[in-house]
Amino acid sequence: MKKACSVVRVLPVLLAAVLVALASSDGPTGDADLAAFNTKFRDVILKMDNAGTVTLWAADGVSLLPDTAPMVGKQAIARFMDSVTKDLSGYHVTKEEIEWKDMRVSGDWASEWGFVHQEVMPPGEKPAIEVYGRIALVLHRDMGDGWKIEQEMWQSGPKP
Amino acid sequence: MKKACSVVRVLPVLLAAVLVALASSDGPTGDADLAAFNTKFRDVILKMDNAGTVTLWAADGVSLLPDTAPMVGKQAIARFMDSVTKDLSGYHVTKEEIEWKDMRVSGDWASEWGFVHQEVMPPGEKPAIEVYGRIALVLHRDMGDGWKIEQEMWQSGPKP
Repeated sequence: MKKACSVVRVLPVLLAAVLVALASSDGPTGDADLAAFNTKFRDVILKMDNAGTVTLWAADGVSLLPDTAPMVGKQAIARFMDSVTKDLSGYHVTKEEIEWKDMRVSGDWASEWGFVHQEVMPPGEKPAIEVYGRIALVLHRDMGDGWKIEQEMWQSGPKP
Repeated sequence: MKKACSVVRVLPVLLAAVLVALASSDGPTGDADLAAFNTKFRDVILKMDNAGTVTLWAADGVSLLPDTAPMVGKQAIARFMDSVTKDLSGYHVTKEEIEWKDMRVSGDWASEWGFVHQEVMPPGEKPAIEVYGRIALVLHRDMGDGWKIEQEMWQSGPKP
């Protein structure tokens, strides 16, 4: 019976490990991590911190902006952001409000969408530019480094 | 040892059930169901079959169209589609091509996005209207009735 007893000891451990993995995949840990991601996502946009934004992307992530060809991969996204910053030299993001909706976590994948209100201050005496829109993200959990953007879509939207 | 032997018999069954559940959540069954959903999604648009489109939605699904307030729930989406059909009386959808990308299944949730090319024929002798854009969906598996749309976002896009 030695073999059977060994199986008795090992199986509950395996089963417990699988059940813990299942439970944690949809649990509050995932949600807290996603909330932390969302705070960082807002902060790097507000600070126009392009390098910080790039760290939030998966290596093969795709960004879908209206009327623009898809940008695929961290390098393409970094180049795009640098070109925007160059074109908008002297502009500052003074408000970045995102009201996230339908935050969903299933295993190592998550999705969410949100209302976005951005205020951008041009150089000189020009009035602030108010931008309203919506964003939808699909994220993948990078073990040890939190959620990373795999897919991003933006659209313009009316003032809510 | 009777109790121990009973545990030996039951645990492998439990473990196997959990592992089968894990394996099937990301397996080809999910993908085949999603492919079937995609075919139906295209067909109901092509046929302008509003009732058929509504059956593909989750009860609390949200539709996000550019510059339009979010539509939440099957009834709101059905009303919107009926108003579009009424406004476009005499128009026919003659082409509905969707090239789906990044189809991802994790447990009972899935996401995907795609390039859309739609051709609409107005009444009379007017030329066809060509529409290019992108769609992103988040879907939830309805046990026994396939994937249902929980979230939809559209954006206009250049001709690929």
